[in-house]
Amino acid sequence: MLALAGEDLHQVNRLIVESMNSPVSLIPQLAGHIVASGGKRLRPLLTLAAAKLCGYEGDRHIGLATCVEFIHTATLLHDDVVDESMLRRGKDSANAVWGNQASVLVGDFLFSRAFQIMVADGSLRILKILSDASALIAEGEVMQLLTTNDTKTSEEAYLDVIRAKTATLFAAAASVGAVVAERPQAEEQALESYGMNLGIAFQLIDDVLDYSADEKALGKTVGDDFREGKISLPVVLAWRRGNDEERGFWCRTLEDLDQKDGDLLYAMALMEKHNALHDTIDRARHYGSIARDALGLFRDCPMKDAMLEAIDFAIERAY
Amino acid sequence: MLALAGEDLHQVNRLIVESMNSPVSLIPQLAGHIVASGGKRLRPLLTLAAAKLCGYEGDRHIGLATCVEFIHTATLLHDDVVDESMLRRGKDSANAVWGNQASVLVGDFLFSRAFQIMVADGSLRILKILSDASALIAEGEVMQLLTTNDTKTSEEAYLDVIRAKTATLFAAAASVGAVVAERPQAEEQALESYGMNLGIAFQLIDDVLDYSADEKALGKTVGDDFREGKISLPVVLAWRRGNDEERGFWCRTLEDLDQKDGDLLYAMALMEKHNALHDTIDRARHYGSIARDALGLFRDCPMKDAMLEAIDFAIERAY
Repeated sequence: MLALAGEDLHQVNRLIVESMNSPVSLIPQLAGHIVASGGKRLRPLLTLAAAKLCGYEGDRHIGLATCVEFIHTATLLHDDVVDESMLRRGKDSANAVWGNQASVLVGDFLFSRAFQIMVADGSLRILKILSDASALIAEGEVMQLLTTNDTKTSEEAYLDVIRAKTATLFAAAASVGAVVAERPQAEEQALESYGMNLGIAFQLIDDVLDYSADEKALGKTVGDDFREGKISLPVVLAWRRGNDEERGFWCRTLEDLDQKDGDLLYAMALMEKHNALHDTIDRARHYGSIARDALGLFRDCPMKDAMLEAIDFAIERAY
Repeated sequence: MLALAGEDLHQVNRLIVESMNSPVSLIPQLAGHIVASGGKRLRPLLTLAAAKLCGYEGDRHIGLATCVEFIHTATLLHDDVVDESMLRRGKDSANAVWGNQASVLVGDFLFSRAFQIMVADGSLRILKILSDASALIAEGEVMQLLTTNDTKTSEEAYLDVIRAKTATLFAAAASVGAVVAERPQAEEQALESYGMNLGIAFQLIDDVLDYSADEKALGKTVGDDFREGKISLPVVLAWRRGNDEERGFWCRTLEDLDQKDGDLLYAMALMEKHNALHDTIDRARHYGSIARDALGLFRDCPMKDAMLEAIDFAIERAY
């Protein structure tokens, strides 16, 4: 996908830097910190790829992909705001450097800027897709706040959260590609489904990696979710399949956040015992298949192949 | 204004309650807490009044006034997020009850919901006015973050902050009334100027009240700005007119936030000595006059009288 949409993504990166400019210098500083910090630009890439798949030849997709990335970045900034009761992470996140309030306000700025770009683009249909997505993302985030630390969270409740919180923006990003190319509704819906299911698969594999990744290979820390008491699908499965003693362990570590050395290793051992990671990957495959079939509507072409490969790539990361 | 637009405001209040609904119950709970907490609905009232002044007879102004209030509420929620370094206020604000993160996310939800309502309304012109305003507000908030605790802030720098942070939404709220009524640009600009200057006057008087209000009469606590180290115009004037010893006092209390019993009273005495409150009111009058003249474009009618009275009311609060 990167090979086929690389030139466009280059333009998006330029527009991102241009658009986060402001006379208030803290804004480009803080926004630059997070926008530049190694993001994969997955979501804007989906918009670019979908537009190309639909045969679009204009340049509106550049601005719209930028909007998608800004909405994502605003969400990240707001996500990182630490609760008074949760001053725990020692990470070099934007809020650690500049404080909670600056992170919130720069997030608001990026969010507003995204809407300004959409308004300049002028499509009410796209404004609807992305404002609906934004409201759903916020709902998903609040939902997650309520399920955090609740080991009894069901698989369905967890899926509701990641559908809203993560997959909705993937879906919106992809469907915008069809809208900008003025393709029929069936193609818009196919791309929406592709994005939605790819997003779910992507998040599930992220959950797996948090308990298994080769830190060096992925530049990702293992155990972040565990330390924060985040309930992800591997935890849901291990808890449901565990005995009373094991549930006591999950309750102590994830609900009470009373964690000792060795707890993370024991958690990983429990996941191994119950096949929790393996079966989470299986679940991800299921959503990957739906994403694959969604693209069945489109004629074969290099971009379609690339988008199918992206599904495999999202899932194979787990190996 | 309330008498002439009361029925409309009643409808706005109903739509507010309807629109903050969500299956995620914390959202209406937290949003209800802040929306219901005695807000004066000044900003939506401006939209309603301006629409009526322009002879508008439809009902789109109801939804748009709701958007304006949601943007304001989201700003309030995000404003209240306390920095790790500033866990000082003991107020019963939403973030004190539900935590920082919930306040941020519910603010995001209300902000997104405002855009959803605007998109449903369908005017790109109005979407532009309100997304431009939102970006400016965020810029103003970040600017304020940077000037907080800097006693050397100039009057101009302070005015830039309140223009962006407060007056911009007043201006947008009022000009939307002309747009919805499809009035010529001159009237839109007149209402924008009315809102902008009324907003500046309003904020300046708020600054004065924080050092002088009769607490019981206004349900407002005196000294909040002082305790937070906020630099407002009365402080700017007292500092500029003060001697070295007095500047030392301002520096200790507002920059270092090292405050003792009696400091607030001494601060008030310094303001008295330098006519800082009196002259801030004079400045407010100046902006009030501009707001008054802006309405000169409109023919006399009861709503115009009410909007002129609103200026006087905003300023006379200080007595």
